[in-house]
Amino acid sequence: MGYGEIDQLAINTIRLLAVDGTLKANSGHPGAPMGMAPVSHVLFNKFMSFNPKNPDWINRDRFVLSNGHGCMLQYSLLHLFGYAVSLDDLKNFRQVDSITPGHPEAHDTPGIEVTTGPLGQGFTNAVGLAIAQAHTAATFNKPGFELINNHTFTFFGDGCAQEGVASEAASIAGHLKLGNLIAIYDDNKISIDGDTKISFTEDVLKRFESYGWHTLEVNDGDHDLEGIEAAIAKAKAVTDKPSVIKLTTTIGFGSKLQGTGGVHGNPLKADDAAGVKQKFGFNPEESFVVPKEVYDLYHKKAAEGAAKEQEWNELFKKYSAEHKELASEFTRRLEKKLPDGWEKHLPTYKPGDKAVGSRIYSQNVLEAVHKVIPELLSGSADLTPSNNTRWKDAVDFQPPSLGLGDWSGRYIRFGVREHGMAGVMNGISAYGGLIPAGGTFLNFVSYAAGSVRLSAISHQRVIYVATHDSIGLGEDGPTHQPIETLAHFRALPNMQVWRPADGNETSAAWYMALTSKATPSILALSRQALPNLENSTIENAIKGAYTLVDAPDADIILISSGSEVSLCVDTVAALKEQGIKAKVVSIPCFEIFDAQPKEYRLSVLPDGIPVLSVEVLSTMGWEKYSHEQFGLNRFGASGPYKDVYKKFEFTTAGISKRAIATIDFYKGAKVRSPINRAFQQLI
Amino acid sequence: MGYGEIDQLAINTIRLLAVDGTLKANSGHPGAPMGMAPVSHVLFNKFMSFNPKNPDWINRDRFVLSNGHGCMLQYSLLHLFGYAVSLDDLKNFRQVDSITPGHPEAHDTPGIEVTTGPLGQGFTNAVGLAIAQAHTAATFNKPGFELINNHTFTFFGDGCAQEGVASEAASIAGHLKLGNLIAIYDDNKISIDGDTKISFTEDVLKRFESYGWHTLEVNDGDHDLEGIEAAIAKAKAVTDKPSVIKLTTTIGFGSKLQGTGGVHGNPLKADDAAGVKQKFGFNPEESFVVPKEVYDLYHKKAAEGAAKEQEWNELFKKYSAEHKELASEFTRRLEKKLPDGWEKHLPTYKPGDKAVGSRIYSQNVLEAVHKVIPELLSGSADLTPSNNTRWKDAVDFQPPSLGLGDWSGRYIRFGVREHGMAGVMNGISAYGGLIPAGGTFLNFVSYAAGSVRLSAISHQRVIYVATHDSIGLGEDGPTHQPIETLAHFRALPNMQVWRPADGNETSAAWYMALTSKATPSILALSRQALPNLENSTIENAIKGAYTLVDAPDADIILISSGSEVSLCVDTVAALKEQGIKAKVVSIPCFEIFDAQPKEYRLSVLPDGIPVLSVEVLSTMGWEKYSHEQFGLNRFGASGPYKDVYKKFEFTTAGISKRAIATIDFYKGAKVRSPINRAFQQLI
Repeated sequence: MGYGEIDQLAINTIRLLAVDGTLKANSGHPGAPMGMAPVSHVLFNKFMSFNPKNPDWINRDRFVLSNGHGCMLQYSLLHLFGYAVSLDDLKNFRQVDSITPGHPEAHDTPGIEVTTGPLGQGFTNAVGLAIAQAHTAATFNKPGFELINNHTFTFFGDGCAQEGVASEAASIAGHLKLGNLIAIYDDNKISIDGDTKISFTEDVLKRFESYGWHTLEVNDGDHDLEGIEAAIAKAKAVTDKPSVIKLTTTIGFGSKLQGTGGVHGNPLKADDAAGVKQKFGFNPEESFVVPKEVYDLYHKKAAEGAAKEQEWNELFKKYSAEHKELASEFTRRLEKKLPDGWEKHLPTYKPGDKAVGSRIYSQNVLEAVHKVIPELLSGSADLTPSNNTRWKDAVDFQPPSLGLGDWSGRYIRFGVREHGMAGVMNGISAYGGLIPAGGTFLNFVSYAAGSVRLSAISHQRVIYVATHDSIGLGEDGPTHQPIETLAHFRALPNMQVWRPADGNETSAAWYMALTSKATPSILALSRQALPNLENSTIENAIKGAYTLVDAPDADIILISSGSEVSLCVDTVAALKEQGIKAKVVSIPCFEIFDAQPKEYRLSVLPDGIPVLSVEVLSTMGWEKYSHEQFGLNRFGASGPYKDVYKKFEFTTAGISKRAIATIDFYKGAKVRSPINRAFQQLI
Repeated sequence: MGYGEIDQLAINTIRLLAVDGTLKANSGHPGAPMGMAPVSHVLFNKFMSFNPKNPDWINRDRFVLSNGHGCMLQYSLLHLFGYAVSLDDLKNFRQVDSITPGHPEAHDTPGIEVTTGPLGQGFTNAVGLAIAQAHTAATFNKPGFELINNHTFTFFGDGCAQEGVASEAASIAGHLKLGNLIAIYDDNKISIDGDTKISFTEDVLKRFESYGWHTLEVNDGDHDLEGIEAAIAKAKAVTDKPSVIKLTTTIGFGSKLQGTGGVHGNPLKADDAAGVKQKFGFNPEESFVVPKEVYDLYHKKAAEGAAKEQEWNELFKKYSAEHKELASEFTRRLEKKLPDGWEKHLPTYKPGDKAVGSRIYSQNVLEAVHKVIPELLSGSADLTPSNNTRWKDAVDFQPPSLGLGDWSGRYIRFGVREHGMAGVMNGISAYGGLIPAGGTFLNFVSYAAGSVRLSAISHQRVIYVATHDSIGLGEDGPTHQPIETLAHFRALPNMQVWRPADGNETSAAWYMALTSKATPSILALSRQALPNLENSTIENAIKGAYTLVDAPDADIILISSGSEVSLCVDTVAALKEQGIKAKVVSIPCFEIFDAQPKEYRLSVLPDGIPVLSVEVLSTMGWEKYSHEQFGLNRFGASGPYKDVYKKFEFTTAGISKRAIATIDFYKGAKVRSPINRAFQQLI
């Protein structure tokens, strides 16, 4: 309490940095920063614990700007408090190769926790950050050692409030009673189309109440610093529910266009910017001005944060003495190092071992490794018995008061909320020290596409357990049978899409997913049983592709993934009867195969042999590895899966026919390996 | 009121058909049908108007089973009331090529309004159906002629209630005060993971209240037929809000496992099924039994429905006499015939005409055709000024009481709800007589992937106006720049993805989108200006691809789409200086090009010339038309778009370099056209 001139100066400095940043870039969103500068000032200066010199301190309070288009606000705050974001960086806002891109990106900019901008994502990430906090606290805190007690704060606007992904996340957070989560809703009543009343007349706080949130209101977010402070303090005091504060602000506060859509997505006009500066007592001729008093104020706060971290480091030193193993475990997890020898626990199989669905092989991995990788959390969007994501003795992650589990539980019940699950997993991963895995049908990973994309863009080790991966799911029919889905995610940069053919390949997929520290994975797993294949090993599979069935002087290579690999193996025998020699290449992961040395790739797909790809989904993408493609470029069918495979000619006869057509077509031609290309792609 | 034995018999008949259908298929979900048989009986027999002999009667009440996995319920009802769904069809439940697939598909089964199963979609479609009803009524009803006054009823379960897409739709419906929409929430407290309390403890009715819905409760949905009837009657009486009735039912009512997850997604065990039959007074040895009294009851209701349609037909005859033009317009729309000569209004351009973004060319189409195609509705997910989806004199579709528009308005403010928008558009299209178009950034069409897929699978003429289609959007950066998006949607069957290169191609894209009656379209449009090109014409572009720049004895073909086409044209000149002869092929739409005769396709991409593709997104998919691909298989960058293009070498120099590498690589080789293939794909 007791706000004065210095506070107003700080607030106006933040506002004007946003005005100048967007003006110089001739692009960006000044409105939200100008409206949210007061609450930012109160939150960052009075409440948050952080050390700008070490943005990775694990017990820092997390801040997420879900309305990421307002990122000049966040960049300005980072600069003012002394993070490694310079005034020049602010001047390079929205320029190529700057650390201040158009929307906040976690891996680009020190102090940015998660990548936001696509609306609703940041809010959802914040729920994940709060889940990770609760879990980590329950796992590592000991009497006298409250190692982990940070809060997660998020700002969100009308856009985020309208997105379904944020609704899902809010419902999850309410159910989970995440008391350390505080969301501040910027009720500025303006979105790109203008006044929100044209499409958004719901009672947002009542909705949050229905989810089980604690709700608060501050009517004058432009001036009532005391009111903001009191609301945040109240929110912190309520520890058995997440809190949301509805803060009414004026978008573009100070501009001639304040309170209108004109100030949302475009820089202020030069004269307007000058007018704002004058109004705030700044020199209208100058830009990017930070009064010394403001730096002093914020650097003092930063120093307090550094001291807090120092205290925490002392605490952790004592903790290390009293709880040696826990402490080294804590450190190991934060360093993203898996326990030595964990991989020895991965199940392996011999040909003839019982054939089960790869979803079951995946469950076998979880059963085998969950004890040795305690940082692995699992869960499902209400398809636990179908996704096989839960190990037998798993404890649910639940607020203890529900009597259904515990904060230290490692199995998350996401409900039928695929998009929310994915965004929450991004937040859990971003917190540090945890590896989230979540299940749904492959077809419904598409519901989560917005968050899946952000897993990739923000380098999160998130694992999507995507079962029922094709028409092989059978009776559920076309609405549930993915066709375009693998093409979609294989085209997504920095995403490993795995479609293992048997038990060993499933273990390999998990091995790579768990050890790829900056890449998410989608494990596309079958419902139907897949036999364990000769020559399939973890070592082979982690190369992305390998020769499963070799044949000297082969007439053709069949390249395939997942459930069609064993079908191709069967086809080799059928072709042999017709005097045709065929090899089979199994390619469980395009992305990993692409990363192998060219020599290896050429050894798998050499010049001189035509290649036919076989996969019961869209053929798109397979041209990269094959001359001809057999796939399914139409929707599937509802029926027992063997009937469905037959309908679409995915049988040894159907494959043989196309193999022969391929051999005939290329007879006499000089066949180039698909690996040999005219030039390298940019990466 | 006054329910007796016959009602109970009808209800149990419905239950047992679901038991038998799932048992025979050895697959499916008996639980929801057994729980919802009572409300179905009351709703269908007491309230709904429909004529099973003409499922297309436009003023029929619409019924949507959003919890589509319970479709044995709907198939049974269709059969019992006399739709063209036979007892044999019920016996073929979930078999290949039956009309009773695992989830309801609109184009497969008479009486199924929309394709459901993916959770949340049906609820969202219902909002679209209600919007279409309100709009059509406002457009065609006249004093004394209430042509259109149907209701839309939807059942939804806990799964749908948890999905974000349904939250978005519920918020839209509340804002729009859709009084003719009545949703019945099957509160059976069970989902696949078991008791919903493990993840879903929100107050659903309070949430709907917060959206502005009228809410009701029936506590004993298993027995209280009077209560159900009273609730639906009250819901119908409230005409200024949509209504939701929370109906508590027992999943799998009658089974030994009733009220548990055991009865959700698996058929009953044989002994359990026999026990249920016994309990309900049926012969446990018999299956698929329909007592004559039940047929009689429901056929009587069906006959009443037929009579209602007959009355309506009389009314329409009178209407046709008094409102001749309106009546023929009404008929024209329902027949999906566009007005004669409408296409003459499409804008055309000459080289040298002002270059603008293709989003503006798209707006020009809307300005030109909206008056001649009055069934075209437009809208945006809160990006109106960016998507350019609104013609200048558009009236918003709004409840008149808000003072912001009118039911007859043709511009829908969807709010920041991409997934909801898409699902609502599917419903609008399914109603009949309307063509919905909705805008967002191409990157955020991915948020709507679940509904976009259903546009395709259910043959809806829905138009996605997807602006900001590449890194060409510039400063907003990687979080907003699509990379994988076109590969994703090009791999989706029955979806036209257009990426026009200039004004004429944009007109062509709209021409095809509007005239493709059973196929949705995505129009990928640029933010940046695109020059109008020589040889670009509507006639050329509607072939999907054509030779834009010809060259005798060409050394190479550059094939490209959208904003990169003019860059390729410029590259021809640069290559010429080096003595290289290049053709340019513009391919605005893969799917339409694929549908051309092979002869034509070979004339565009003949044997003997290497082809290089150029598009600033993932190269995936381009191998089908080219030997080498220049694209972007990584995330983009934030900066002014010309800088971003330069960073990734999308310049005449960058393209030339790769063209030369391609020519050199294929020198001396026998180059096969990518059109010539070893075998045909299944379609």
